[in-house]
Amino acid sequence: MISKAELQQRIVQTVRDVRETNPMAGSITNTVTVNFVANAQIAAGGSAAMVYLPDEGEFLANAGWATYLNMGTLLPVYEETIPRTAQTLHELRRPWVLDPVGIGIGSLRTRLLAQLKEYKPTIIRGNASEVIALASLWEIATEATAYVRGVDSTQGVGEARSAAIALARYTGGAVAVSGVDDLVTDGVMVARSHGGSHFMAKITGSGCSLGGVAAVYATMAPSPFTAALTAVNAFNLAGTRAEKRVDAPGSFQVAFLDELYKASAEDIARNSFDLEEA
Amino acid sequence: MISKAELQQRIVQTVRDVRETNPMAGSITNTVTVNFVANAQIAAGGSAAMVYLPDEGEFLANAGWATYLNMGTLLPVYEETIPRTAQTLHELRRPWVLDPVGIGIGSLRTRLLAQLKEYKPTIIRGNASEVIALASLWEIATEATAYVRGVDSTQGVGEARSAAIALARYTGGAVAVSGVDDLVTDGVMVARSHGGSHFMAKITGSGCSLGGVAAVYATMAPSPFTAALTAVNAFNLAGTRAEKRVDAPGSFQVAFLDELYKASAEDIARNSFDLEEA
Amino acid sequence: MISKAELQQRIVQTVRDVRETNPMAGSITNTVTVNFVANAQIAAGGSAAMVYLPDEGEFLANAGWATYLNMGTLLPVYEETIPRTAQTLHELRRPWVLDPVGIGIGSLRTRLLAQLKEYKPTIIRGNASEVIALASLWEIATEATAYVRGVDSTQGVGEARSAAIALARYTGGAVAVSGVDDLVTDGVMVARSHGGSHFMAKITGSGCSLGGVAAVYATMAPSPFTAALTAVNAFNLAGTRAEKRVDAPGSFQVAFLDELYKASAEDIARNSFDLEEA
Repeated sequence: MISKAELQQRIVQTVRDVRETNPMAGSITNTVTVNFVANAQIAAGGSAAMVYLPDEGEFLANAGWATYLNMGTLLPVYEETIPRTAQTLHELRRPWVLDPVGIGIGSLRTRLLAQLKEYKPTIIRGNASEVIALASLWEIATEATAYVRGVDSTQGVGEARSAAIALARYTGGAVAVSGVDDLVTDGVMVARSHGGSHFMAKITGSGCSLGGVAAVYATMAPSPFTAALTAVNAFNLAGTRAEKRVDAPGSFQVAFLDELYKASAEDIARNSFDLEEA
Repeated sequence: MISKAELQQRIVQTVRDVRETNPMAGSITNTVTVNFVANAQIAAGGSAAMVYLPDEGEFLANAGWATYLNMGTLLPVYEETIPRTAQTLHELRRPWVLDPVGIGIGSLRTRLLAQLKEYKPTIIRGNASEVIALASLWEIATEATAYVRGVDSTQGVGEARSAAIALARYTGGAVAVSGVDDLVTDGVMVARSHGGSHFMAKITGSGCSLGGVAAVYATMAPSPFTAALTAVNAFNLAGTRAEKRVDAPGSFQVAFLDELYKASAEDIARNSFDLEEA
Repeated sequence: MISKAELQQRIVQTVRDVRETNPMAGSITNTVTVNFVANAQIAAGGSAAMVYLPDEGEFLANAGWATYLNMGTLLPVYEETIPRTAQTLHELRRPWVLDPVGIGIGSLRTRLLAQLKEYKPTIIRGNASEVIALASLWEIATEATAYVRGVDSTQGVGEARSAAIALARYTGGAVAVSGVDDLVTDGVMVARSHGGSHFMAKITGSGCSLGGVAAVYATMAPSPFTAALTAVNAFNLAGTRAEKRVDAPGSFQVAFLDELYKASAEDIARNSFDLEEA
């Protein structure tokens, strides 16, 4: 298992490489938070492009260095766009991030998420309920039962630990579970990242933008685990700092983007986290 | 007729119940202001989820405690989604809010709005022109003629008084007419709520988010009238307070969300309003 | 050729007329920045309305005083909506602005942009790569070769000078090329407008909202060139002023809208620009 110090060094390098390279990460994502996702990706040093059509998803899968697929606000055309894009990404061995938001709502979402199993997302990002529900949908051994209510989690991060590990072992990538503390695992290691802000649950887009930024870091990081942890650490740091400057969620959104932009590579690496074996 | 003091007590209770319960209100709403709607719903203490597909609308109608249907930026799939969702809500006797924004633009919007008559929205939220136009489309007795221009009102709230009362008597719910002052009626009482800010007409989403927040309050309020007035009072209070802190619309949007979040139940109940018989 | 002083007087008059008249400019635009576009149009003094459906596009083409067509985040229905709207605008001789964002991504975009040639947009707004790519797609003489990467420009404004002039001569309208400095031409004159902020490339929507605001000014301006230059000058002024107040992109977005709203007609006209023959 990698040491924490070595991992921190990899985080520093990932943040720096992204800022120097301005890599493009394409997204197919929901209309509610699409603007926040794009701005967060840019604030982190990436370049954003969003599409809906099948051949445009394929185009971005080819042209982008990583891709973000978010299941929120599905449109009819996603029936074709999502599988074709994911298949392209899988064939090209290009990193991609899956956010199974809204899992359990509607038949198309269930069908698409079931199909995505074979394309093995590099990083899965969800809250505890979503991660447990995805492991269950994919029939990957987990004892937990998911309780999903709309787009919010009703379960704690700890409850999703075994599901996250099982999913990561299946995909060979990483899984990031969002909550008060965040859990990141590649099936071998489990990191718990601390910080953030209670305001992150009082705005839209904290989770979606984390997935989008994880895709940006995945363009440069040496592993999916490093990419996911870099994103989670950056968000926890920015959340902590933003909360100190504001007292309400409107201002928090603005301050959060500011702090994401201003965070140094070293500070992101040093954001408090624990590392243990899975 | 209920006394003003009793009504204020109901408003206090509604705001508190929402903040304690964090009820989920699903929305089918336009892409322009969808983010602002969701953030306003969360700031008020609710939980938001947005969808486009027919079975997902039905799902939210079942899972949510109230639903918001906004006619802006129609997509082809709405032809199926809107009627199925509204029918489900009607059958379940679940509260829902209709915003007939853009009434008069395009044939699908006219067709959908005509269909929605039979599903009797619990709350109708529009500007004066939209409310008059809806009463006219539904052939509900009103002397006023609507002058709609795009999404903005060209008529004052007072001109829509009789149309609003007639609509409320038809639906058995409440109607909220937005303007410099806001009018709320259930066909028996008419409340006029004061405050707000001239900046609310200088940003997008003041009206849409009012509808979304009315849906949040409708999950808990003892009547559609209380839910609508709670939302209108909260918006007028937040608008008044936000305007004091800023001098331009970009900052106003941020400050408005902040003040919506920070407003106490008592202050929302005490926001200046008059009450009279219809 | 018009003198700079006379041009500045026209800019002053355009800004004033818009603020007094509150003209409606409809848009068909992408979901990523649609909110920012609408808010910028309102901040400039216009009124905004966004649609997706074919007959609604035609409606806005008729009802609006100018229309903005932005090629980002295409939906399947655009196949019908975009050509019908553009044809209506062309037949009515109503001003409209084309933003060919994402040119080169996907077959529908290429097909739509090819079709739009015959409807001759009043103003074309793009970055250097997009303007060069459009001239190439329309087979309008230009020596430059486009290098498009997602939605960002990889080329400087100067490289697009001849393409912009050729396009403007073809359409009989104006072309605005966004970059560190901005270039505006009607094929006879070339203006270079200075200012702005490096943060404009660190947020989404700078370019899209410039197109939307150019449509607002096109409702009143005596020429497409004046409309485009008014918009470009207003954006450079607001960007310069916003940058002085902030140190990060989240705050910049807010401050930018504020400054767009607060900029006086005279200050917009006096924003630094050079004028030369094409």
